Order: sequence, then structure tokens, then C-alpha cells
Amino acid sequence: MLKTQNPDFKKTIQQKLKNNHFSHLIGFHLTKIKAGSIEGEMKILHHHQQQNGFVHGGVASTVCDIVAGFAAFSLVSNNEFVVTAEIKISYLNPGIGKKLIARGWVLKAGSKIHFCESEVWSIDGKKKTLIAKATASMAVVSRK
Amino acid sequence: MLKTQNPDFKKTIQQKLKNNHFSHLIGFHLTKIKAGSIEGEMKILHHHQQQNGFVHGGVASTVCDIVAGFAAFSLVSNNEFVVTAEIKISYLNPGIGKKLIARGWVLKAGSKIHFCESEVWSIDGKKKTLIAKATASMAVVSRK
Amino acid sequence: MLKTQNPDFKKTIQQKLKNNHFSHLIGFHLTKIKAGSIEGEMKILHHHQQQNGFVHGGVASTVCDIVAGFAAFSLVSNNEFVVTAEIKISYLNPGIGKKLIARGWVLKAGSKIHFCESEVWSIDGKKKTLIAKATASMAVVSRK
Amino acid sequence: MLKTQNPDFKKTIQQKLKNNHFSHLIGFHLTKIKAGSIEGEMKILHHHQQQNGFVHGGVASTVCDIVAGFAAFSLVSNNEFVVTAEIKISYLNPGIGKKLIARGWVLKAGSKIHFCESEVWSIDGKKKTLIAKATASMAVVSRK
Repeated sequence: MLKTQNPDFKKTIQQKLKNNHFSHLIGFHLTKIKAGSIEGEMKILHHHQQQNGFVHGGVASTVCDIVAGFAAFSLVSNNEFVVTAEIKISYLNPGIGKKLIARGWVLKAGSKIHFCESEVWSIDGKKKTLIAKATASMAVVSRK
Repeated sequence: MLKTQNPDFKKTIQQKLKNNHFSHLIGFHLTKIKAGSIEGEMKILHHHQQQNGFVHGGVASTVCDIVAGFAAFSLVSNNEFVVTAEIKISYLNPGIGKKLIARGWVLKAGSKIHFCESEVWSIDGKKKTLIAKATASMAVVSRK
Repeated sequence: MLKTQNPDFKKTIQQKLKNNHFSHLIGFHLTKIKAGSIEGEMKILHHHQQQNGFVHGGVASTVCDIVAGFAAFSLVSNNEFVVTAEIKISYLNPGIGKKLIARGWVLKAGSKIHFCESEVWSIDGKKKTLIAKATASMAVVSRK
Repeated sequence: MLKTQNPDFKKTIQQKLKNNHFSHLIGFHLTKIKAGSIEGEMKILHHHQQQNGFVHGGVASTVCDIVAGFAAFSLVSNNEFVVTAEIKISYLNPGIGKKLIARGWVLKAGSKIHFCESEVWSIDGKKKTLIAKATASMAVVSRK
């Protein structure tokens, strides 16, 4: 676990999640919340697919953003929050199956930017496939 | 307009869209389809927001991916399709307002990869704000 | 021209350049310095090539970084400087010819991050080819 | 070690390196060549610095590109080569010290694109610092 500025980060993240409406729309929820490392999962439903029957890239990029963002957010003080400055997602394999799991972590915490990475796996029976990997710059912002 | 390998690209794209279930879930539809250039729009609804009341980054990245991807797809032959190899999205401004519009275009069409860019604007009354810009590599794949 | 916090930015950039030893090693120099927009050029020599006889990608990425970085730097106050947080370069065409020209500009100036873009062209006789395009996040740092 | 299509990849890479003139200019050489994984190093000299006394970002991006590119190249057949389609470099820490070491590897080998990652560390006495991390798409090209 990385060093956090917010001893209550688990509680703070749970509260934030209530108002993260787009993650509710897609059905993604967090399963592990550690300082600098976040995991979550979602069922793959028909409305997550694109025209070839695979999970839409936008679903994978959304969950990459969420777990990387909360990994960064878990480290900042109660007077700060984070915003995604940029994220790059590489699509390694098509997403097929029943479930997506995602993990995000902080690679380097800075005073202004937390550099993060995240991965998304699709679960199809016993088969687990890495479908996307992301790198992101999360800007640390002070509340006014 | 760039040179396309598929004279019927408008019809082909309309058919593809029917099965792009995730774009239906978020409510995004295309408004202009040209060879190498695509535009679309969506209403911003409550379920598109994140915890700070702004459009979720995942919504912006999804529409960036869709318009860039279809811009690439508009150029390939009927025996080919495209997949997003990677996309990077820079978040320039928070997304606020009633509507998002997105535009994607092909910067360089290659034999294996179409390099594309896309932009997303939020419309708040008369105010139009560039909220995200993306660059993407769309891999050209032959149907077997 | 964008709004700058440093009325003497041209002079400040000229001074900075003296100690940018790596740009001297590769032979790159600036030709136009405006607030938020920078141009430069270099001769293509044998030692800039990779094994296939094209300009090495590292040369293109270096000049993309320099012009984007100085475009951001031209806008900040005398108490600030910028560092490249991240840069993505897409390689559109092989670099062949006698000369490279590069242009960088600020897409969005923020309080913490200046989002920039840059392009590199190779000049081969009368032929001008876009060989690379970059997007970068330049972090604004206060001098202590 | 990943599966390679070229049993003589070590020899092939050594030959390629002779004509990689830009890596000679910056003084970078390979130290380990495995299928899908490449390491190299270079002395940090005065001409590698930018104006603040740190290793220029262009040096780090160049060595990230070289080790990721050769990691991809180590896997392809003798009738193929690779070109960098795009690379994103995140600058985590300033590069200070006597030596840089770099490592590149293939994350996913595909039929058209090899997705790679690479890292650069600066060595300052006993201190080893991760200064940059890159993700790249290496396009696999057939010789005509």
C-alpha cells in the first residue's frame, strides 16, 4: 500500500461512488479499495456490445478510467480531488464472456500529477483474458 | 472528402450502427457521414455524470472512439473492417450543459493502420466548449 | 497569439536554448517564437537515421517535445517553468530528405497543465510530408 | 521468453544495430537480447541534458522506442520487420546521474501489431530511479 494523505479514504470513496452515475449506468462496482490500488467488476450485458459482439471499447476505457482515478484519489488529502488529464488505452484482445474485472494502481504519486495504470480482463468461464491496458495522468486539484 | 474503397459506406455504416448497442445505451447517434469524417451528438442526461456533476470521462472517450472509428471505417473496402488498436484522450475542460457533439476524422490512411483524431464539444446554451480531444490508431482488418 | 504571463518570453526562450544541450547535439534550432506557438528546423544528417535509412523516431519525438514544450513555456510567468508530463507521438510517414521542420502549439492553457500539440514535416526537394504528430501534457511548475 | 518466428533473432538484431546511427550518436547499446525482451544502457553525458541539467526527454523517449521496437522485432520472421506506429511516454522523475538503463518487452504479440512497454531508469551512485515509462504499438510489416 502506498502512503495516503486521507486516513478515511475508503469511506470517502464509497461516498463518491454514490454520485458516479455513469458507473451505475454501465453496472460497474468496486470490490477492493486499498491506498493506491483499486479493483472492480461488472457483468457483461447485451447493451455493452458493439456491432461485432465484443465489449465496446468505451466500456473498457470507462472502467480503466474509474479504477485508475480512484487509485489516485485514495492517496490525496480531504482538501483535494483528482481529475483525469489524459488517458491512453491499448486494446489487446476482444472482450468476450460474462464478466469484466478491472484493476488500477498508482505508478508514481507526484505533487501535481499522479501517474496511474489500469488493466481490464474479461472472464469467459475459466478463461481470463487481458483485453485492455491503460496509462493515465491524474491531476491533483485543491478544493477552493 | 478522402478516397474510399467502399462506394456504399453510408449505407454500410447505418447498418453497423443498428448493432452498436453501447452507443444506444448512452444515446449517441451520427448526424453527418462523409468519407473520412464523421459527426454525431447526444443529449447530456443525469446518468452520464460523474460525482462532480460533469460528463463522465468515459462518455467522452466512448464518443471519441465511435466517431474516429467510423471515420476510419468509411474508407475501407467491403471486405475489411477496423478495430481500435489504441486511443489517447486529453480532457481539456469539464463537460457541462445539455448536449455533446463529436467529430472524428482520418489524419492519415495507411494500408494497415488509419491514424485518426476526434473532438468532443459540450453545448451549454450558446456556449460551445471543447472538452476532449483524442488521437487513435485504427487497425484495418480483412474479413476471413 | 495566446495571452502570455511573460512579456519577455522571446528573450527568456533564447536564453533557455543555450543550455538545451541535446537540441544542439541533434542540430535543431528555433525559427519562429510566438506566444503559444513555436517553429524550428534541422538538417537531416546520416547520424539521425535508423537502420532502414529513415529519420529515427527518437529524432521526431525529440523535436515534437521541444516545440510543444517551448509553446507552453512561452505562456507562463517568469516565476514558472514547464516540464513534459507525457507525450504521445504517432508516426504517420517515414522521414526522408534534407530537412525537418517542426511546429508546436498550445491547445488549452490551464492553471496546472498546458495541453499542447506538435507536428514534424520532412522536406525532400519540393515535397513536404507530415511524418509525425504529437499530443503532450506540459505541467506548469512554480520556481521555489 | 515469448515464441519467436526467427530462430536467429539475436544475430539479426546485432546486424540491424550497426546501421542504427541515431543510437550510436546518443551512445546507447544493447546488453540483453531475449525473445520479446530487450535491455540496454548508455552513459549520461553533458550533451544529453536540457536546460535544467536533467536528461532530455527526447533521450528517454528514444531509448524507450529502441528497446520496445527491438523487443517486437525479436519475435517476427525473417520476412518481416516492425515500425513504431505510436508511442506514449510518461515522465515520472527527472533523470540525473551517470547512466541510463532501459528495458522493453512485448505485452501482446498480434498478427498486425505488437503491443509493447518500456521503462528507463537513471543510475546515480547506488540510487536507481524510474524516470520514464512508455507504451507503444509496433506495426508488423512484410518485406516485399
